Amino acid sequence: MREVFLDYASTSPVDPDVQQAIMQSFQDCIGNPSSIHHFGRKSRETVETNRGHVAKLLGCKTDEIVFTAGGTEANNLAIKGTAYIHKDKQGTKGPHIITSVIEHPAILEPCRSLEDDGYKVAYLPVDKYGLIDIHQLKDTITKDTFLITIMTANNEIGTIEPIPEIGKIAHDHNILFHTDAVQGVGKLPLDVKKQNIDMLSLSAHKFYGPKGVGALYVRNGVKLQPLMHGGGHEKGLRSSTLNVPGIAGVGKAAELAYQRMPTDPKRIQENRDHLIKRILTIEESFLNGHPTKRLCNNAHFRFTGIEGESLLLALDDKGIAASTGSACSSQKQQASHVLLAIGLSHVEAHGSLRFSLGRLTSKEDIDYAADELPGIVNRLRQMSPMWNR
Amino acid sequence: MREVFLDYASTSPVDPDVQQAIMQSFQDCIGNPSSIHHFGRKSRETVETNRGHVAKLLGCKTDEIVFTAGGTEANNLAIKGTAYIHKDKQGTKGPHIITSVIEHPAILEPCRSLEDDGYKVAYLPVDKYGLIDIHQLKDTITKDTFLITIMTANNEIGTIEPIPEIGKIAHDHNILFHTDAVQGVGKLPLDVKKQNIDMLSLSAHKFYGPKGVGALYVRNGVKLQPLMHGGGHEKGLRSSTLNVPGIAGVGKAAELAYQRMPTDPKRIQENRDHLIKRILTIEESFLNGHPTKRLCNNAHFRFTGIEGESLLLALDDKGIAASTGSACSSQKQQASHVLLAIGLSHVEAHGSLRFSLGRLTSKEDIDYAADELPGIVNRLRQMSPMWNR
Repeated sequence: MREVFLDYASTSPVDPDVQQAIMQSFQDCIGNPSSIHHFGRKSRETVETNRGHVAKLLGCKTDEIVFTAGGTEANNLAIKGTAYIHKDKQGTKGPHIITSVIEHPAILEPCRSLEDDGYKVAYLPVDKYGLIDIHQLKDTITKDTFLITIMTANNEIGTIEPIPEIGKIAHDHNILFHTDAVQGVGKLPLDVKKQNIDMLSLSAHKFYGPKGVGALYVRNGVKLQPLMHGGGHEKGLRSSTLNVPGIAGVGKAAELAYQRMPTDPKRIQENRDHLIKRILTIEESFLNGHPTKRLCNNAHFRFTGIEGESLLLALDDKGIAASTGSACSSQKQQASHVLLAIGLSHVEAHGSLRFSLGRLTSKEDIDYAADELPGIVNRLRQMSPMWNR
Repeated sequence: MREVFLDYASTSPVDPDVQQAIMQSFQDCIGNPSSIHHFGRKSRETVETNRGHVAKLLGCKTDEIVFTAGGTEANNLAIKGTAYIHKDKQGTKGPHIITSVIEHPAILEPCRSLEDDGYKVAYLPVDKYGLIDIHQLKDTITKDTFLITIMTANNEIGTIEPIPEIGKIAHDHNILFHTDAVQGVGKLPLDVKKQNIDMLSLSAHKFYGPKGVGALYVRNGVKLQPLMHGGGHEKGLRSSTLNVPGIAGVGKAAELAYQRMPTDPKRIQENRDHLIKRILTIEESFLNGHPTKRLCNNAHFRFTGIEGESLLLALDDKGIAASTGSACSSQKQQASHVLLAIGLSHVEAHGSLRFSLGRLTSKEDIDYAADELPGIVNRLRQMSPMWNR
């Protein structure tokens, strides 16, 4: 049976060159990068070279990259780290954060935990495509707003938010702008300086790097309190012995992403468009998300009369991996907060499925999935009490 | 020139079997372990198998292991995680933690940050060997004490604390007991149930696993608040896509440590004793730390009339890696808080050097270092204003 992985938005296989860079680090980097002997210096050199690769991909300075254990930690550090700096001493009226209702849980949950501590958070709604309204953003700003955090692109439906415009508004009001770019890195050209971004989160395993490592870009001058206290690594922002193999991996992945930016997204988008075209030939199937302001690799559908969960399992039986939403929430039974936010009913949300493509996805993979899907949808509909044709 | 790594307490090379396990995970574990398709299930299986290896090494249940990005995060999670649960609503008299003055910064700094938030922390002194006093511990307990955190063994001088006795006292008083066992794991037989431990921190790279991954053992029933909020991974205690290659690495490292426990520590200690014997033949050289209650791989000396820093650099010129203290603080110029705590003067503390041995250290390595050292010490003393013979 063919094995077709169409769940690149949840994670990606590790590129062979990245694997090689990690293996090489095990040979070259015996020492602790904080040690001053030659074993340590060699490790430190590897760390700094790879910090440079990440910085180049984002268009920032090398010393503006803080390595973390992944996107979740980067998001928590950005949000809580600035919140603790802006703590209201009087406690009368909480400092204020603006975010959106369709953020990843790694943004929403830190915000909710801050609300428990007395901070105020505004959750901007989105339109039927998943876009925030720039005018509404402006109107939501208060004199207590210290942070706007809006994702670069949505992890479920792939909608790309107007990042440079949001950054401009933030800066016009002297407010920090953070973006969770976990889904965008390697798929969209990013330039934190031109796009008015003060902080940006990324995760290596979303762009062919290893799991367990990520980074937060922090513009020089932005003050953060660390989440983890200890030996004072990463300019005191993130204590912990540096994850040398992980950093070798995310650095190589960033280098590859930079090199492939002119070619990969275009080719992946062509495959994606082919998939969308074929799937929309199925009766009562619809594309969720924006028709054009959309990640190159994202295709998100709903099918009347069936459960996405059943569809996912039936596809899995055919060797095809897809997702009903964020992998992080895939073991929970709630309807996606993103799909509800764009106006889908609970039934429509539960009838949705995400296909996400990647560097290794071939046209043959797409055709295999598109060949199998109509039969599966038909079979499930025949068994469905929600399908009355 | 011979290359002799005698800095295993700062980090260790990654065992070839561990490297292999990590590479294998890149092949086998394409999916996100939270995904329900077969790619995801395969990754989840790898995670759980390796969680079992870590649990076996510590003598706990598999579901009592929470994976982290390393020892620092594990320590922060244990201390702040329990502190936030025991937050004093009245704010009149802070909840109380007991620790020791010789803990690693990854314990001391989270404690200090909690002091800023109104918690009370007692820092127990140690005797000239680095041991805490059990009676003093008892006397320090107040009705507000919710946590005792004492390291299993000191990272600089290698002194092993009386862990089971500390745990017994904690439990007699209905207080949680956490131990930073980062230096102890793989060198001492550990059994969290027999040793009355409620939480234990470990870091893979200290026992031939990769950097960037660690674990916190949390006894079932102990309540923690997470440091990182998000998708709710690890029973909600540590949100973030699971670090599958890191977990494959720490699991294999734990499996090897368990297998080698009957042989490795004994052999390493023999080499270590040989090193101590040879070095103490140098005039005005002294062993810091306890003569017997000491990690098998630790040898820590002071040499009258010279700077440890100069000694370290001179040894590095001969290809020998040692350390003047914790690698985490090696780029700072302060005298070691551990050496001051055992009663050394600033001059004595600055004249100290740690050699730490490991699985790959041979008798030839030891002899090479012991052959080179006397000449270096002599040369440095001749240039030293502190040496008047």
